[in-house]
Order: sequence, then C-alpha cells, then structure tokens
Amino acid sequence: MKRNVIVGQSGGPTAVINSSLAGVYKTAKDRGFHNVYGMLHGIQGFLDEQYVDLSKQIRNDLDIELLKRTPSAFLGTCRFKLPEIHENKEIYEKVFEILNRLEIDSFIYIGGNDSMDTIKKLSDYSILTGQTQKFIGVPKTIDNDLALTDHTPGYGSAAKYIGTSVKEIIRDGLSQSYKKDIVTIVEIMGRNAGWLTGSAALSKAEDCDGPDLIYLPELAFDLKDFIEKIKKLLKHKHSLVIAVSEGLKLKDGQYVCEMGASSEYVDAFGHRQLTGTANYLASFVAGELGIKTRGIELSTLQRSASHLASRIDVNEAFMVGGAAVKAADEGDTGKMVVIDRVSDDPYQCSTGIYDVHKIANDEKLVPRQWITKDGTYVTKEFIDYVTPLIQGDYQPVMVEGIPRHLVLVK
Amino acid sequence: MKRNVIVGQSGGPTAVINSSLAGVYKTAKDRGFHNVYGMLHGIQGFLDEQYVDLSKQIRNDLDIELLKRTPSAFLGTCRFKLPEIHENKEIYEKVFEILNRLEIDSFIYIGGNDSMDTIKKLSDYSILTGQTQKFIGVPKTIDNDLALTDHTPGYGSAAKYIGTSVKEIIRDGLSQSYKKDIVTIVEIMGRNAGWLTGSAALSKAEDCDGPDLIYLPELAFDLKDFIEKIKKLLKHKHSLVIAVSEGLKLKDGQYVCEMGASSEYVDAFGHRQLTGTANYLASFVAGELGIKTRGIELSTLQRSASHLASRIDVNEAFMVGGAAVKAADEGDTGKMVVIDRVSDDPYQCSTGIYDVHKIANDEKLVPRQWITKDGTYVTKEFIDYVTPLIQGDYQPVMVEGIPRHLVLVK
Repeated sequence: MKRNVIVGQSGGPTAVINSSLAGVYKTAKDRGFHNVYGMLHGIQGFLDEQYVDLSKQIRNDLDIELLKRTPSAFLGTCRFKLPEIHENKEIYEKVFEILNRLEIDSFIYIGGNDSMDTIKKLSDYSILTGQTQKFIGVPKTIDNDLALTDHTPGYGSAAKYIGTSVKEIIRDGLSQSYKKDIVTIVEIMGRNAGWLTGSAALSKAEDCDGPDLIYLPELAFDLKDFIEKIKKLLKHKHSLVIAVSEGLKLKDGQYVCEMGASSEYVDAFGHRQLTGTANYLASFVAGELGIKTRGIELSTLQRSASHLASRIDVNEAFMVGGAAVKAADEGDTGKMVVIDRVSDDPYQCSTGIYDVHKIANDEKLVPRQWITKDGTYVTKEFIDYVTPLIQGDYQPVMVEGIPRHLVLVK
Repeated sequence: MKRNVIVGQSGGPTAVINSSLAGVYKTAKDRGFHNVYGMLHGIQGFLDEQYVDLSKQIRNDLDIELLKRTPSAFLGTCRFKLPEIHENKEIYEKVFEILNRLEIDSFIYIGGNDSMDTIKKLSDYSILTGQTQKFIGVPKTIDNDLALTDHTPGYGSAAKYIGTSVKEIIRDGLSQSYKKDIVTIVEIMGRNAGWLTGSAALSKAEDCDGPDLIYLPELAFDLKDFIEKIKKLLKHKHSLVIAVSEGLKLKDGQYVCEMGASSEYVDAFGHRQLTGTANYLASFVAGELGIKTRGIELSTLQRSASHLASRIDVNEAFMVGGAAVKAADEGDTGKMVVIDRVSDDPYQCSTGIYDVHKIANDEKLVPRQWITKDGTYVTKEFIDYVTPLIQGDYQPVMVEGIPRHLVLVK
C-alpha cells in the first residue's frame, strides 16, 4: 500500500492558512510520502470526491514561496460540521471508502474549533472500526480563540494589519481636526473574543497615541458610559479613534450591531439589514453630541491582507503544518498541533501536540486581568503577549505593481 | 530681506502628500532659501498664526525618509475657501501682513481644486496690490480629478491599495463559495470621478479574474439592469465581486447611498443615518435574489495606506513639491505644477507648470470611451493609463512590527 497524505482547509480564511498548507506539502514530500492530495472545500468537497494532486499544483520551490504569500484558502474552505457517528454512519463509511481507495495514511485538517471537531470524530470512527489512518489538526484562526495553544497562526498577521491600519486612521483623523471634533469608530472582527480588537493598541508607540478607547466583547458595553468617556476626552483633544469589537453586547445581551434604525427592516427572504456596530455607534455619537463621526469596518481585509503578513506568523503557520505531518508519520492520531511559547525575551516557541478531545469547541477569551479595570483598554500584559507575533515582514512578490498569488489549476 | 518659504497642506489627505512636503523642504534648502515654515492646518491655521519652523521638525535625511512614508497631512489640513477679494478685503490684508512679517518670498500650497482656488486668489491679490510674494500650487488628491495634469500625486498609491485589496477580497470570496452563491460589493471613494473605482480592475492578471462588474459614477446606475447582470453571472460562477463608486446615482439623480431604509431616520441635530452605497446594494441583492451578500467599504484606508504606497507616486509627489519651489524661485506665481506624461513605454514623465486660473474648480472625469459600452467595466486604455502609476514599492520603516511615522513636535 502506498503512503499518501490528504490535506484540507476549513472555516474562515486567514493571510497565512496557505503557509500551513505549504508546510504540510513540503514535510510530506521530505518524509517520503508518495502522493499529497488536497481536498477542495474541506470535508464537504471531499465527500463529493473533489480533490487534487498537490504535486501538480506546487511544482517547485518558487510555487511554495508564492503559496506562502497567497491569502485565503488555496484549496477552498467549507463550514460543514460532521454529524455524530451514531446519527449518520453512512457519511463516515463514505469518507473511509474514499480514504482507503486513495490509500491515505495521514489526514491533515487546517482549521479552527469546528475543524478540530471533524478531526475528533474521524479519529474516533477510525479507532472504533479498526482502521489505520491518522488524523491530525492544524490550528488556524484570526480570532485566536483556540484553547491550549499559546496563540493561533493567522492571528499575528491580522493583528499586524489592524495595528498598522488603526495607526494610519489615527493620523488621518488628527490631520483634519483643526477646531473641530471628529470621532472615528473602527469595527474589528471577533464575535466573542477580543484578541483582534485589543491588537488595535499595537498602534501605540513613540509616534502615536494609539486608540483612545478599546472595547472588547468580553465585557458588557454601556452606551451612557461610552458617551461620558467621549465627552471627557474631547475636552483635551479634537480627534478620537475608538476600537470596538463587532460583537459588542449590552448588559441585557442585545448586540450593538442590531440596534440600528434599519434593523426593523426585513426583506422577502427574512434577512434583516444590519447597520453594523461601528456605523451604529458613529450615528449614536453624532446624534448625542452633534459632532462629526465616522464608522470604519476593517471587514474582510483584516483576514486577507497577506501583503502585510507577519513573518513570524507565516513561519509558524508553515511550522505547524510540517509538525502535523511529522506527528501523523510517527503514529499520532486524534491530535492537534499547538504552539508553546518557550520564552518571552527573546521570543521563542516550539510545537507541541494535544489530544483533540481536550480542544474542540472550547473558546479562549481575553483574560479579565488583561483588560483595564474600567474596561476601555488592554493592559501591558496583553501588548507583551501579542507584540512578538507581529514581527517581521514577508514581502509579496510584486508583478506589475500588484502582489502575485498562486492559483489552483483545475 | 530674508528669502523665506512657507508651505501648507489642504483638503483630504493622501498616502504621499508628505512626500510633496519633503520635496518642498529639500528643494527650498538646496536652493538657499533661509527659513522654511510650515503652516498648520493650511490657510485656516495660518490666519490664526499657527505655523512651525520646518528645520526644527525635519532634522536630517532620515527624517525626510520618514516623512515620505508618513500618511495623512503632517502639518494638518483644512477645508477653508477664501472669500472673493471684494467680499472680505480684511482677510487678505491679514494674510499679507503675516507673510510680510515672516519675510515670505514663496508660498507653496499642496492640495486639490479648492487649494488651487486659494493660490489663484492670493496671487491675484498680490498682483493687484503690488506685492512681491510668489504663490505656487502643488497638485494632490487621491481622486485624480484635477484638470490639465496627466494625473495627480496620491492617486497612484490609492489605486495600488485598491487593486491589491480587491484582489485579496476576490480570493476570500472564491475560497468560501462552494455550492453557494456569494456576492461582495466593494465601495470605493470618488463622489463624481471614477478613477479610483476603475482601479479595482488592476487586480485582474494571470492569477485573478478581477472584479466581475465595475460601476463608475460618471454613468447613471440602473438597479434592474444591475440585478439582471448579477443573475446572468451567477449561472457560471459562485462568487462575484463588484466594485462600485460611493457616488453612484440613479438616472433621476438620487444617490444610491441615500436609498437605505435608515435614510428616513434623522437625529436631533438633523443628521441622516446613511447606509452607504455598498451596504445598500448588498441588502438589495440579498433581498432580490435571496443569496449571501456582503458590503465592504474601503473607506479612509484607501487614502492613508502609506504601508502600500507606490514608489512612482512617492517619487512624483516629491518631484512636484521640488518643482513648485523651483518655479517660485524663478519668479513664477499664480501657477500650479502639473505632471506631463512624456512617454508611455517606457513610462516617463516630467513636470510642467500652468496658469492656475485655467485649473481651479474644473473636475476631470473618466472619459466615456475609457468605460465599456455597457458601462460595467473600464477599457484597456484605462488600465494602460493607470498601470505605470502603481509601480514599485516604498517599504515602510518598521519598528516593533508597525510602520514608523514622523510626528509634528509642537
């Protein structure tokens, strides 16, 4: 029997998810695996027998470098949760029929909490039915909300993009605020975890005051207190920049993004037109204080800006991909690779491996003690944690002035 | 009498407006001018006697390099239109009283159409009253809507950012569209001129299809036709990315951004809460077709992203700043520096100088023949025009993983 590997990507993309794919491919080839397959659109595409031979896609070392610089999921992703084994045995039988036909030895899945659930279920089924494949998860999410790993590949690059963009926005506001107040609200991803929103504080340095207020979703948001804080700050400066999480909620649990005037409007398909957290708060502040405000959503850009990736992040993403193949090759299964921080100064980390049963669906939030007492900023501990993760650049390969990516050949 | 220079910045900032400031400073020093003053927040701050000695701000060649990499207006800008001379003579008397007191020989103003109006009026007044100062304008605007110049510094860097970000957004959409349709609407700046929106087409290359549709504000927008085009495209692909100008208007003149459900809502200060063009269209498409849509506003980021500036743009901005000082030094007044394209292949340009009376308030739009017949894309002529302007990078100076800027010392 041949020893083949199959790898897939799942969930929301990141700037470095393809660096992990490159790490899987390179290590699999280096360790003598025969074929390395890529499933298209994760387990969902796999069930439709959608896969490619990666050696036809990644033809040389330059392709590996391009792949490491390509944002979003090269193979495509899915949001597909496998049923419990007892609920639908047929789907598992189908997965293993394809795996056996393709002579797969190692199944590597790059993703977040849902993906680790997939690894867990497939590994459980494999053990239950006496099969020999190994199933290993590779952590990936810009949200940094995976448990047990010090941090998650994808987070560092998103944090670098957010820190840089917020700094550029702060300067934009400053330059235009002569004798007039302007409040800019920047909305940052992270429904439940504030790791990304907190990284707006990375803009603070000798040459920049940083955002004036930072609101994470871990704490209840109070509109009245918000307005009071703004009023107080406006006594001393004309331009304020405030970072808010998309997932801000009031004490009663209502999302701020659902408070807009337009949230009453429902279309024929039942969609509600949401205003967005930043736009709602910008309107709210304008309405309360009668000053110029603007709402800025960093949106998709923060997870796809590979042009501003962190070198540490790209390299660690590559490393965890390789470590997954090594683990499978050495007989591990039902595990996720994690990053252990070995040292803070100088920053050093290594990979570890954990039982995926301990990881799945456990959301890591920003600890309360890393948020200031009044809940409007992150502490030095937070900054010290994230700063090493945004170091170094990974320059895009520019063709005609625009970054070049690697594309799937079908 | 000393020969001093004063320079100001006005209007919306760009990624390279400070490169022009650096060019003014460097050339003024090189040509033996004594003091180089910077007015804070343009003519508005100048009237309040707000200015700095630039030699205290720019202390060495490294500061010049940092300044060229600093987004937004280093000196601050204003949106302040001088009255007609006959309407308010006092304001002109005040300007010239300060100019004479500071022994200003050359007054350089970096800005767009309104700024050229300032140059025109001050120069007219100077000639009418027999004064000796020279007034020269330096073109600046991301919108590229200034007449007589081939293009305007600031445009190239914004176009490079837009082309790059749209390409990253296209990949993000593609990777998530397995067996499901997703339409992404990207809103780009440009109220009346479509130069920026058209630059979304720069994402098109061997490795990217580019946006599926591009709508410029030069042509009336038709909602029904828009939906029909989307329906047709969705027959062949699952993920569409559509670039739209913030200034899209219907045939009857109504702005699309004013059509949202929330536009009826007016706060205590009379502000209307606008949905935005992209968000409105995203809701509209979701409502009509029942598919997943998202609206993305590139917003302020497109004019402040100096981390992705075009080297051609940075260098040209520096060059026009220097050319303005040279022109004033040689006795010109009431003029604006322009960029003349000398050759397309290889791209070469040089500076020229035009009477500012011919320039002021004349908006340059995208020519109809550079937009496709059906009004949903730009032509090869458009691409050939803009491509040279986005070439080359101007790497930020990174400190702790974030770009370093030069800051005004007060």
